[in-house]
Amino acid sequence: MTDDNRVRGLWCATLTPVGPDGSLDEARMAGHARDLLAKGVEGVAPFGTTGEGPSFSVTERRSGLEALLRGGIAPRQIVVGTGCASLTDTLALTRHALENGVARCLVLPPFFYKNLSDDAVYALYATLVDRVADSRLRLYVYHIPQFSSVGIWPDTLRRLADAYPQVVAGVKDSAGDWTNTARLLDRVPHLDVLVGHEPDLPKLMRGGGAGTICGIANVYPDIVRALLARDVAAADEARMAQFLAVLARFPFLPAFKAIKAAQSGDAAWNALRPPWLDLADSARTDLVASLRGAGFDVG
Amino acid sequence: MTDDNRVRGLWCATLTPVGPDGSLDEARMAGHARDLLAKGVEGVAPFGTTGEGPSFSVTERRSGLEALLRGGIAPRQIVVGTGCASLTDTLALTRHALENGVARCLVLPPFFYKNLSDDAVYALYATLVDRVADSRLRLYVYHIPQFSSVGIWPDTLRRLADAYPQVVAGVKDSAGDWTNTARLLDRVPHLDVLVGHEPDLPKLMRGGGAGTICGIANVYPDIVRALLARDVAAADEARMAQFLAVLARFPFLPAFKAIKAAQSGDAAWNALRPPWLDLADSARTDLVASLRGAGFDVG
Repeated sequence: MTDDNRVRGLWCATLTPVGPDGSLDEARMAGHARDLLAKGVEGVAPFGTTGEGPSFSVTERRSGLEALLRGGIAPRQIVVGTGCASLTDTLALTRHALENGVARCLVLPPFFYKNLSDDAVYALYATLVDRVADSRLRLYVYHIPQFSSVGIWPDTLRRLADAYPQVVAGVKDSAGDWTNTARLLDRVPHLDVLVGHEPDLPKLMRGGGAGTICGIANVYPDIVRALLARDVAAADEARMAQFLAVLARFPFLPAFKAIKAAQSGDAAWNALRPPWLDLADSARTDLVASLRGAGFDVG
Repeated sequence: MTDDNRVRGLWCATLTPVGPDGSLDEARMAGHARDLLAKGVEGVAPFGTTGEGPSFSVTERRSGLEALLRGGIAPRQIVVGTGCASLTDTLALTRHALENGVARCLVLPPFFYKNLSDDAVYALYATLVDRVADSRLRLYVYHIPQFSSVGIWPDTLRRLADAYPQVVAGVKDSAGDWTNTARLLDRVPHLDVLVGHEPDLPKLMRGGGAGTICGIANVYPDIVRALLARDVAAADEARMAQFLAVLARFPFLPAFKAIKAAQSGDAAWNALRPPWLDLADSARTDLVASLRGAGFDVG
């Protein structure tokens, strides 16, 4: 990869706002993306895990991406989640992204069937790239086995990158297992290696990694950005740990939305799609009080 | 449930034939269903786990159901898998089934996010039923946590059945854990309790269960049917065990398709959708020889 379609630095796995009936709120989605860019986030990654991507239909995900573009987000500021349980849907979303000028796609493997062999994982991504058949595609493989149940291990990724050097651009490693990330830096140093687990960022950047696509950037981009500096201060690492200690007491996705609601003063942000439940009022109060007590901005 | 929309006896979780390019082969799909009904199977359950349901798009799944109906399968002979990762898609497929006269839907929970609370599981099915808002619906809940990662436990199902007594009709318990099945017979005896794990059938039927929706019926319906008899012969249980001992050496889905290919003399049956790989030639030869050696019909 020597083109300028890289994903480097601080990218946000953006939350997806929904209305009381669960419908995608496109205007609020674009507004949130603009806010993040104004705060110095390099780009947005809609429809990932934090963005409840798998909870939206292909039609909804197409509309959401188009809403971002209409809302003034440039294609180069987007890496869009296009992976679905059905490769038919993944293909449709990936082609749609390319038709709209968005080259970078973050792709989950099909995630219903378990215990896939490495050959099967290789084959499914190879099938995707072959069928898309578009050299503009920049594929970011999404390794998050705790949700997808399908790991894309470093040797499989290397095999894929060797077979499709033009297209395979990077990997988001959200497993939170540094051993795997270190092996990625060793096996695919020419790709953009990104992590989802924020505390690993200082090690990642020292090892030549690219940056992060992460959920915390929705609410505390500055705390994440501090971990991308050349010389990370111990206080900045402690600040992240402090936030994560509070977060660990709540389901992460409802918690992110509750923080965003508190910061923005817009309670509508609290709504989630099934299968997530909105955070109970008492938990919300506890979360906000805990963060405020620790000096975090909660509006 | 006192209507005649029950799922009882031997139902087949039908394989979905695909072409070399992975496209759904509708004609062969309907032909396979007719063959099964001719062999005395009570009905067919397309787009379950064995039917690679999650690997097909909403559009493809609609077309497949319509192909069955056009192909002469009656709505009362169908329980259709409509559960998807996105509830939007589940809703679309469930409504489509009802519009086509198919009342019985076998519904997976959204299966990307893990560790859902029982309240969240209840809420997602309640949301589905509320939004479909059609008293014709007969909901069969699909408990297969080893794939979906989301269990619908007996107490949750009871709560759902109490809230929607007209609509909640049954459960397919494919976990293969008899303790759970026994608890279902205790907690929801008025529902159709079906199992996917065939060896549990004699116990299930003695306990007042309804029957099975299973994959083995694609290739050996008689062996499954024997386990539904009032007095099951030990030889019939041994026959099932013998088949399962062979099957355990191969990935189950490619193995079912390979057996069907051998029985029908139609090698096209071997094809699967990603993320599954077709069985290697050597494994196929081994499988067929092993079954033939044990006296099973492989064409």
